[in-house]
Amino acid sequence: MSTTYAPHFIPSKTVLSTSSSFSSTPLIMSQDELKKTAAYKAVEFVESGMVIGLGTGSTAKHAVDRIGDLIQQGVLTNIVGIPTSIKTYEHALNVNITLSDLETHPVVDLAIDGADEVDPDLNLVKGRGGALLREKMIEFASKKFVVIVDESKLVDYIGASGLAFPVEVVPFCWKFTAHRLELLFEEADCVAKIRTSVETGEVFVTDNGNYTIDLYFKKSIGDLKVASDAILRLPGVVEHGLFVNMATTVIVAGEDGVTVKNKC
Amino acid sequence: MSTTYAPHFIPSKTVLSTSSSFSSTPLIMSQDELKKTAAYKAVEFVESGMVIGLGTGSTAKHAVDRIGDLIQQGVLTNIVGIPTSIKTYEHALNVNITLSDLETHPVVDLAIDGADEVDPDLNLVKGRGGALLREKMIEFASKKFVVIVDESKLVDYIGASGLAFPVEVVPFCWKFTAHRLELLFEEADCVAKIRTSVETGEVFVTDNGNYTIDLYFKKSIGDLKVASDAILRLPGVVEHGLFVNMATTVIVAGEDGVTVKNKC
Repeated sequence: MSTTYAPHFIPSKTVLSTSSSFSSTPLIMSQDELKKTAAYKAVEFVESGMVIGLGTGSTAKHAVDRIGDLIQQGVLTNIVGIPTSIKTYEHALNVNITLSDLETHPVVDLAIDGADEVDPDLNLVKGRGGALLREKMIEFASKKFVVIVDESKLVDYIGASGLAFPVEVVPFCWKFTAHRLELLFEEADCVAKIRTSVETGEVFVTDNGNYTIDLYFKKSIGDLKVASDAILRLPGVVEHGLFVNMATTVIVAGEDGVTVKNKC
Repeated sequence: MSTTYAPHFIPSKTVLSTSSSFSSTPLIMSQDELKKTAAYKAVEFVESGMVIGLGTGSTAKHAVDRIGDLIQQGVLTNIVGIPTSIKTYEHALNVNITLSDLETHPVVDLAIDGADEVDPDLNLVKGRGGALLREKMIEFASKKFVVIVDESKLVDYIGASGLAFPVEVVPFCWKFTAHRLELLFEEADCVAKIRTSVETGEVFVTDNGNYTIDLYFKKSIGDLKVASDAILRLPGVVEHGLFVNMATTVIVAGEDGVTVKNKC
């Protein structure tokens, strides 16, 4: 189901279960404003007393800020946040969200996070921000997983953006693992590159002490479940950024409004 | 194919392709002598010029020693060893084996390693010694993988020994991952325990900076490929100790002789 709302008019989440559509004169919004619009819409799903998975990245940061504001205003009470990265942990502390972890709260009511690619079946690529493993653990444990993106993240098929598809690997013999990944996706003309820090040029190290191999495809990688299992079977791979059948809702903010897509 | 040799009479490996059987009066051997017998038999597969994956553990150590001896005697030349753990790296250096890694030698001619369980189809449990990930990476890259065990390691089905089935996990929220593993194998009455160091009682940390969750089953876990994929799909799991369809040969030393089982 897909419902479109004007970006300046965000109805309550009860409307999401209908097929109503709201039109308005489009506003010219920056990419960051679009992200914020999607994030605010997602936070409407949050109810007092919930355990919330807090995503990582520029879009998810808006959601964390919004939750913090609503707690501050007394609109939301008794919220527990489960941060998906050290960065989000620090940011959420700053906006006074009570934090916990999966061990204390193994059931997460709702996770809100951004994504780097969203395909028509709501499959995702995540992890360009570097936090894919903890995100996946927490979102895997969530009853609902709401993804927030601006419309630039919509793709016809996974990999179509030509941007990085991240794979977290153990540092031991990472070049060998990178080569194995290229061979695995030879038919998609895969190129594997180690991720380096933009600031230092050094190899980027994840929160778990691992490296990230970014894959770039020229063609579709075919069946996503098959691809996912094939990557995970390679010894040396810890996790990958493909999230198949995990999102329950995707909120897309675009110039024409906010679209809410629910997993059938 | 299964061929039995007397432990004191180890014919050349060419005999392995026949179905001949050698009987003799059984000798009473210690478990360590049996391990040594299997290891020496495996080293007969080594030829000069080969790149050899060097396993970890008490049985594999005998193979490393034997290779070192044969290099010393000039019987084997131009051997390159790829150690599967830091411990094996140090030991192989001590016995003067030239060492390299998978990045310099991505194709391994032959790997020799022990196992903790061997089922009738030559599927294995490995990693009770703590080195499963590097072992799997190197043995996955090997053209031939010869497993050496004493007969106590033979089981009717994987898990039947009642001993640990190890899973390497990221330290982040390991208790949560352990619980997920128990749920995954609920029907096999699975109990998950974090591995601790025998010496210090502290949580055991792998060569890759991860933890090990040891699973104990009361019943069969069913289809091993399905079980393997299910474990790998859990975010937080790095690798597991189940080696399905990887061994090409298993050499079993027992009181009745040495049995060589080849994968059909």
